[in-house]
Amino acid sequence: MKLWLTGIAAFLSLQLSAQNLNLDNTLAYQLTESLTVEVGQRLAGSEADARAVAWAEKKFKQLGYDKVWVEPFTMQYWQRGQASLTVSAPFHQNLVVTALGGSVGTPFDGISAQVVQFDSLEQLKTATSAQVKDKIVFINKSMGKDKLGTFYGSVVGARAQGAVEAAKLGAKAIIIRSVGTSINRFAHTGIMRYSDDVARIPAAAISVPDAIQLDKMLRLQPELSLQLQMQNKLPGEVISHNVIAEITGSKRPDEIVLISAHLDSWDEGTGALDDGAGVGIVMATGALLKQQAQPERTVRVVLFGNEEGGLVGARAYAAKHADNLKQHVFASESDFGAGRIWRLDTGFGNNSLPFGSALQKKLAHLGIALGDNTASGGPDVSVLKAQGVPVASLQQDGTDYFDYHHTPNDTMDKIEPAAMQQNLEAWLITTTAIANSQLDLRK
Amino acid sequence: MKLWLTGIAAFLSLQLSAQNLNLDNTLAYQLTESLTVEVGQRLAGSEADARAVAWAEKKFKQLGYDKVWVEPFTMQYWQRGQASLTVSAPFHQNLVVTALGGSVGTPFDGISAQVVQFDSLEQLKTATSAQVKDKIVFINKSMGKDKLGTFYGSVVGARAQGAVEAAKLGAKAIIIRSVGTSINRFAHTGIMRYSDDVARIPAAAISVPDAIQLDKMLRLQPELSLQLQMQNKLPGEVISHNVIAEITGSKRPDEIVLISAHLDSWDEGTGALDDGAGVGIVMATGALLKQQAQPERTVRVVLFGNEEGGLVGARAYAAKHADNLKQHVFASESDFGAGRIWRLDTGFGNNSLPFGSALQKKLAHLGIALGDNTASGGPDVSVLKAQGVPVASLQQDGTDYFDYHHTPNDTMDKIEPAAMQQNLEAWLITTTAIANSQLDLRK
Repeated sequence: MKLWLTGIAAFLSLQLSAQNLNLDNTLAYQLTESLTVEVGQRLAGSEADARAVAWAEKKFKQLGYDKVWVEPFTMQYWQRGQASLTVSAPFHQNLVVTALGGSVGTPFDGISAQVVQFDSLEQLKTATSAQVKDKIVFINKSMGKDKLGTFYGSVVGARAQGAVEAAKLGAKAIIIRSVGTSINRFAHTGIMRYSDDVARIPAAAISVPDAIQLDKMLRLQPELSLQLQMQNKLPGEVISHNVIAEITGSKRPDEIVLISAHLDSWDEGTGALDDGAGVGIVMATGALLKQQAQPERTVRVVLFGNEEGGLVGARAYAAKHADNLKQHVFASESDFGAGRIWRLDTGFGNNSLPFGSALQKKLAHLGIALGDNTASGGPDVSVLKAQGVPVASLQQDGTDYFDYHHTPNDTMDKIEPAAMQQNLEAWLITTTAIANSQLDLRK
Repeated sequence: MKLWLTGIAAFLSLQLSAQNLNLDNTLAYQLTESLTVEVGQRLAGSEADARAVAWAEKKFKQLGYDKVWVEPFTMQYWQRGQASLTVSAPFHQNLVVTALGGSVGTPFDGISAQVVQFDSLEQLKTATSAQVKDKIVFINKSMGKDKLGTFYGSVVGARAQGAVEAAKLGAKAIIIRSVGTSINRFAHTGIMRYSDDVARIPAAAISVPDAIQLDKMLRLQPELSLQLQMQNKLPGEVISHNVIAEITGSKRPDEIVLISAHLDSWDEGTGALDDGAGVGIVMATGALLKQQAQPERTVRVVLFGNEEGGLVGARAYAAKHADNLKQHVFASESDFGAGRIWRLDTGFGNNSLPFGSALQKKLAHLGIALGDNTASGGPDVSVLKAQGVPVASLQQDGTDYFDYHHTPNDTMDKIEPAAMQQNLEAWLITTTAIANSQLDLRK
């Protein structure tokens, strides 16, 4: 911990000398660039996460927010180690592999076992113990592409629940085809789960080209063996933080308009799309909004911690603020990359639907249509929605999102500056409209 | 060596049970798939290279070639080890790095030094020792895209000669922006050179996104330090092989029409585009040609070894066959990926230019135009051209070639089956025309 603090002190002193930010429509891009260049990856609970928290506090102050503070929460810290996956004779080859978040490691010498392939989690669930026992399960399900990322839901189950289902049948480990849409040779990480009543087996993802390759090998040689070796660590509980900043409302300061993103990222890229872009967009929105005029309601920007580990920061926020969630008149999150916004979805009370239509008209010149009233508000904000907070989703075009998401390829060069400007304009219009409204969106 | 032989024996026994090949226009694709799936990467001099040689001999026999043999040559074997590159405080981050082929490693604890950036090799050459001494040189030159890959020549110098130029000025190591055209986060390997009169310093490439990132960091903090750690090995001389097969000429068997590709590959991908595709195309060409009718001249298919290390197999071939190079009436190589062929370039004597025009007419229905008479024939074949052997280049569309080339992303899924068919048809027409001609293309 001492070393972390030394590193953070050196980091902050550099920050003070870093170039100033321009408060204009490029601000979201500038902030995302600053976060990804100066901090980079920020795995929840890590030393880099602590640097990201320090970065966010500093930037909020630099941007002129009225209040800036952090709220600590405890979390289980997981660290990735080296990972390798080798095909045994006759096709001796290494496959590109990465541990799924939360996975245990293997014994130091790895696990060697025959591989058994399934098309899907559903097919694995119908398998018998005789098919699976002492083997490495391989789930090879491909993912489709669309603007909303709807195919993610149909494949991510293998990642989240595959280890439990494989272990129930006696598997030694599980590997899955990456939950991603590109043929680039990156494996896609993401959180997985164990169940207390089932053995905890190692879980990993292989890249799409390697999944295709392994499938071809199994067609030639169905009795193929793999050796999986991973050295993950689960050091236990640590403290991370939600970082919060406000522009105080001029007329109704107790009414909170919450806009948000998550500050943590997976560790292999620099977390530019997930969710550096969202961080830049909402931090910039508050700053430009204050520059325009003090809003009537309070605008609160929340950068949630440890979204990737399972909305850990969001749950801590909801628990801490349980007594005043009624004062949260609206909440929304930007967490789907940096593509252009093309649709406004709402999650309002029926009486407020005309407000949604009016809002969409203000956004129409940005190419934004009106969607439906079933918005989640975003992953972290869904926790608040579940408690009755009205939400909206400014839907981004996520067609390419899963080409990069949760891989080493999630880097700043994938972000188009003009698309970030469009996002910022849409968020500024939306937040301003709600912050200067008297409407109760619950109704 | 004993272990290698055991592995190869297991591999060959599997081969016998592998599915049979179909002698049709999909044969090139089938062969490339077989090589990349069953062998994968085949770094020259490695155990995998030996398996590739065994694979090629077996496949040539299976395809009905009249003669099949191997020709050994000695080579310097280089092995990649682990590599890491870390940015020191305040921007503590890991960058994606790979060793350049032939590079020495660092001391076990790595090399820590300030980084100094140059726009190009040419700019480094004008630097002073005071600027460079005891630093890590970073050459950050980007590469453009075109069909012919002409931009490669203007950036590859940094890779080949950068270490020598940096060491002359006292640098501790050199890193270069990857010689590649994609923004995928892969570092691009490839051969580099040392000079006997200059210190041998470690040389590595970082991915394009990491080069962009490092440049952004240096703008904020010009005095940045890096830690480079690499564990390459140079085990010394080993034996590798050119693999050769012939369809014996029915009328002029002593006249050799040589078509070729290289069997070795870099170790990070599976060598599908470089040069598994070429291997598939020329092996299939000979097989389909024999299936049509025995050619009048002998068609010799050469799979050169260790092209990547610097045309080592090609030079061995030229030396071994020095006495009968006059009998080589033609030579050509397929080694530019798997894109469609769009142009025929020749390297004929002036009297044979009408033959080139006539040949192009036979290829026109495949979308192939006539180019100029300055063809190299391909990297390995350029060695034969230098000795007077007539050549041609069936130019492939290489627009995307350097998106994948020499990276982990060079895998089979990048190959379009229909483009491989077009290549095979063009090679079959070309080889047939020359093998059944009596023309001396030298004249």
